[in-house]
Amino acid sequence: MKIGIIGLGLIGGCLGIDFRAAGHTVYGLARKEASCQQAIARGIVDAASTHIESLCPCEVIFVCTPIATIVSMVKQLAAALSPTTIITDVGSVKAAIATEATQHWPQFVGGHPMSGKSEAGLEAAEAGLFQGNPYVITPIESADVHTDLAAVEVIEQLAKQLGSRLYRCAPHAHDRAVAWISHLPVMVSANLIEVALREPDPQTRALAQHLASSGFRDTSRVGGGNPELGLMMAQYNQAEIVRSLKRYQQAIADTIGYLEAEDWAKLSEKLTQTKAGRSLFVEARPDPSAT
Amino acid sequence: MKIGIIGLGLIGGCLGIDFRAAGHTVYGLARKEASCQQAIARGIVDAASTHIESLCPCEVIFVCTPIATIVSMVKQLAAALSPTTIITDVGSVKAAIATEATQHWPQFVGGHPMSGKSEAGLEAAEAGLFQGNPYVITPIESADVHTDLAAVEVIEQLAKQLGSRLYRCAPHAHDRAVAWISHLPVMVSANLIEVALREPDPQTRALAQHLASSGFRDTSRVGGGNPELGLMMAQYNQAEIVRSLKRYQQAIADTIGYLEAEDWAKLSEKLTQTKAGRSLFVEARPDPSAT
Repeated sequence: MKIGIIGLGLIGGCLGIDFRAAGHTVYGLARKEASCQQAIARGIVDAASTHIESLCPCEVIFVCTPIATIVSMVKQLAAALSPTTIITDVGSVKAAIATEATQHWPQFVGGHPMSGKSEAGLEAAEAGLFQGNPYVITPIESADVHTDLAAVEVIEQLAKQLGSRLYRCAPHAHDRAVAWISHLPVMVSANLIEVALREPDPQTRALAQHLASSGFRDTSRVGGGNPELGLMMAQYNQAEIVRSLKRYQQAIADTIGYLEAEDWAKLSEKLTQTKAGRSLFVEARPDPSAT
Repeated sequence: MKIGIIGLGLIGGCLGIDFRAAGHTVYGLARKEASCQQAIARGIVDAASTHIESLCPCEVIFVCTPIATIVSMVKQLAAALSPTTIITDVGSVKAAIATEATQHWPQFVGGHPMSGKSEAGLEAAEAGLFQGNPYVITPIESADVHTDLAAVEVIEQLAKQLGSRLYRCAPHAHDRAVAWISHLPVMVSANLIEVALREPDPQTRALAQHLASSGFRDTSRVGGGNPELGLMMAQYNQAEIVRSLKRYQQAIADTIGYLEAEDWAKLSEKLTQTKAGRSLFVEARPDPSAT
């Protein structure tokens, strides 16, 4: 299959490596000629260009640019491609993208391969990044829009070739689920750092900084990540993040209530449930072939 | 030096191993004869007994029992020891323990070696657990109570032999600092798990569980820990945890406000500050010899 990849960063680069290894022909598109040359030199793509028309031969195109640019990229593609081409994206929010992109291109299929690493950019691209990790495909099935199921299956077949665990759900269900497990944790974690930084007594603040160890390190990790990514999540998944934050706010208020009332039975029940409940999130790893 | 260790669990066991390696004679005290035999067999102690009088020869005694039993243990020791013996503890809260223990034993010095591992018990004891980790000593310097500085220096010398980074502060300063970096993270993290577990739609809940990866895993780790430990922190450091939770609650409310008002500048500023601020906690590792 001829596959186009727009945006030769970490995700685009990793897709190129794995798709070429699976026998596909990969066409890269980047803004800078230097990225094209680098991608060709590293064997990440078969060909690369800065001109959108170079993707005309492709049967499937993966848009791997930042969330804010995906829809405008689909618009540009719409003027250049033959109507059978399938366009998909890899953005970490789906409702805001899939609905609008589908208006511009009926053969659009929203997707989210949930893989990453701490390093960014083409330099960090490697084989097998998606192996064993979730890949969510989000067809639209509303009253007036219906994503073409044949197109969905093409993307799912490609995701299987990456070794991903496949999930199919509505864009809103994806956004609600990732609010819980990805976006809310960023807000929860960032605010932990913020309040600790704002301890008014300088000696206690310095002591806390010196005493912090693995517990603080882990709980604060995602809140100390890339601010642009956090902001983009908030902008594009605002309603779901607010919903999850409000439920979280209530749970924090309940905790304060238990502590002030010395209701140790309630606090103990909460901590016992969270210990048991965590395993549902960190151990739930079904067989990918079952989906 | 003759050193007594009460409570042959992970911390007590690790102290025994390192103190023997440093040339001290270590006397263990446990509730069960089997623990005594095991500690002797593994070379963790020179001698071990279930009788408190066996510790009479000791110059320093480390109470390594759970927080709830430390003060009553000091009381029992007070009836058995010669008045020059120094008693210290390893509890993770200090104000609630140090004040009362000092009333029963003037030569009491509160301490908190901040080391641990995921496995508990004597079986998990190993050499070098305290190496490079903080050890906080919390003498009291109030109007009517003054911890003997010579006793403080004895404990500090022993902590140095463990390779720990030494800190000396008032019990309340310790409790406030660990509320930020150890106790608040548990509450923050536990509530994240709780609200995600309570997503009302079963399909979205299941999807969230399947999609959770390293971000959720890290942020939820300490909230999915031992409920008894979390409860004990809350009971013995209640005022400081409530104080930190209320500041945290306000920060969460601010975040919701930014999102609802689409005040992306404010949210961006917050996330930029937390990214920069986190490094103060996770990279602040001063030279132990400087303290």
